[in-house]
This record gives sequence, C-alpha cells and structure tokens, in this order.
Amino acid sequence: MRSGRLPQGVEWAVHACLVLALLRPDEQLPAQRLAELFDLPPAYLAKVMQDLAVAGVVVSASGRHGGYRLAAAPGELTVGRVVRATGLAEALFVCTEIRGRGPCAATPEQCRTPCAVATVMRRAEMAYLEVLDAVSLADLPVPGGRAAAEQWLTAHVHRVKERS
Amino acid sequence: MRSGRLPQGVEWAVHACLVLALLRPDEQLPAQRLAELFDLPPAYLAKVMQDLAVAGVVVSASGRHGGYRLAAAPGELTVGRVVRATGLAEALFVCTEIRGRGPCAATPEQCRTPCAVATVMRRAEMAYLEVLDAVSLADLPVPGGRAAAEQWLTAHVHRVKERS
Ligand code: FES
Ligand code: FES
Repeated sequence: MRSGRLPQGVEWAVHACLVLALLRPDEQLPAQRLAELFDLPPAYLAKVMQDLAVAGVVVSASGRHGGYRLAAAPGELTVGRVVRATGLAEALFVCTEIRGRGPCAATPEQCRTPCAVATVMRRAEMAYLEVLDAVSLADLPVPGGRAAAEQWLTAHVHRVKERS
Repeated sequence: MRSGRLPQGVEWAVHACLVLALLRPDEQLPAQRLAELFDLPPAYLAKVMQDLAVAGVVVSASGRHGGYRLAAAPGELTVGRVVRATGLAEALFVCTEIRGRGPCAATPEQCRTPCAVATVMRRAEMAYLEVLDAVSLADLPVPGGRAAAEQWLTAHVHRVKERS
C-alpha cells in the first residue's frame, strides 16, 4: 500500500464522490466543506481527495471560488475507478519476487513466467474489480438521503461565474 | 488494516506455507530457518507467522525441537484462509459509519439497513475470496521447484521424536 494509505480511505472517497455527484455543472465544493459535511479531519480527507484528483476521478479548481467536482458524469464513473484511486492494488497484494531470494531461489529462467502465487492473487483482484466496475456512482443512493445533502450543498457550493 | 500490516505479508505467508506443505507429519521448521530460506528479516517474518498461527493456519511448537508446521493437510488449506489470516478484510475496506456524521447524517432509522457503499464493497470482497477459496496449497507448485526446497529442508527441519 502507498505510505500513509488510510484504511477508511475507500469509504471516505466513495461517500465524497456521491456528494459531488449532486453538484450541477457550474458548481464545485471546497475540500474544507467536504470535511465539515462528514465531520472529518480536513488534512486526512484532503489526502484522499488528492489521490482522487491524481487518478482523474475528480478535478479541482484553486482560488477563491475553487473546489472539487467529479471529472465525469456520475453514470460514467464506476466504484472500481474510485477504489483503484485510493491505492487498492498495493493494499491487496504486493509481489516482491520472494521466489528469487535465498538458498532455494528460483532461477532467472523460472522467473520468466509469473509466479503461481501472484497469478492466483491477480485473478482474485480481477474478480474483485469486476464487481466494482459494474456499479457506477449513479447506481448508489446518497447515504443519509439526497434531499438533505442537496439542501446543505445549496448553502455551501461555490458557483463558477459563467463567462459569456 | 491491523497496525503494522506488511504490504508483502500475503506473498510471504503463501510462500512460507508452500514450503511447510513439504514437511512430513513429524517435522517442523523454526521461524528463523524460514527467514533464512527466503532471506527475509526474521522479526517481520515472525509477525506474519504469528498471524497465521492465530488464524489456525499453522501450529507452532516451542522448545529446542520447535518450529512451525501446517495445521492441516495442504489440500485442506485454501489460499483464501492464508490471505484472510494476514488481515485482508481490514486492508480491503473499513466502514467507520461515516454516514452517521456531520450536518447531513443519516438517522439511526436509516442506519438500520446496511449502507449501499458497504454492501457493494462486501460483494466485491466475496468475489475476491471465492477465487482464493477455490485454490488450495496443494494446487500450487513450489516456486523455485520442489526438489531444491526438499533438499534444503532435509538439512534444516526439526524432527519430533516419536513417542511410543
Ligand atoms: S514471487 Fe511474488 S508472489 Fe511469488
Ligand atoms: S457508512 Fe460506511 S460505507 Fe457507508
């Protein structure tokens, strides 16, 4: 796992995206507001949001009217993409080529084909992501209810001025 | 994830079990020897082996002739059991009931049914484990080759004296 990965990072990331999914195209939400909405430590949530931005799940605009919004329509962003962005692969399984170490090390020849252990772990990861890739952000209800979140958002979003 | 969980813990655990699978019923292998075999830091490997022991995948005997062996026949121990023992569930997903926090918190009523996010994550975990539960330690070749490992073991196992 990447250093500093939070165990609850996936939960925070998906819940945050479900709120961002309610924004209109000209709206964005500052990270600080998201932290208030979920009553979370802003620095930790900021780290999660940055991972999402690096992965292209959200985009951020800086400045007075800045904030986060989804990088695509909710129906086009799968839960799998959000989960990958939080460093899932590293958390699931890391192969350090242990078979190449010590007195019974596999030969470089033998190491040309993938290790059987890594292969079965990779198959499991694919099954995991297959479930998550079949669900988009538009498929999930907003926990706590859409109406409450929309009302709160109305008071806290930043609206980007339309330029003519 | 449990504190101190190693990202490469799964790799080490499965490879170690594949070596223990070669032991005869009256043999056991000290953790220190396993660390030598894989050229790994003994303290870190010891932690992984202790997790396996807590989960009932391996058993250990202490004392001069002590060491680890599998808790069951290799064909009866699935990769899924080994992977679970390393703290997989905590690494995959942790729900901290974020929906119950902040100004738009779900009501206790709403929280009686599982969160949709947790539900889809659980479904993915089940698909993941289904793949790993279909593979036993007996299904996997010994990386580096069985012959080399068996030869090395002959020189390093502890044999338990048969009592009559
Ligand atoms: S060498 Fe890494 S999983 Fe086998
Ligand atoms: S409240 Fe934990 S996943 Fe939704």
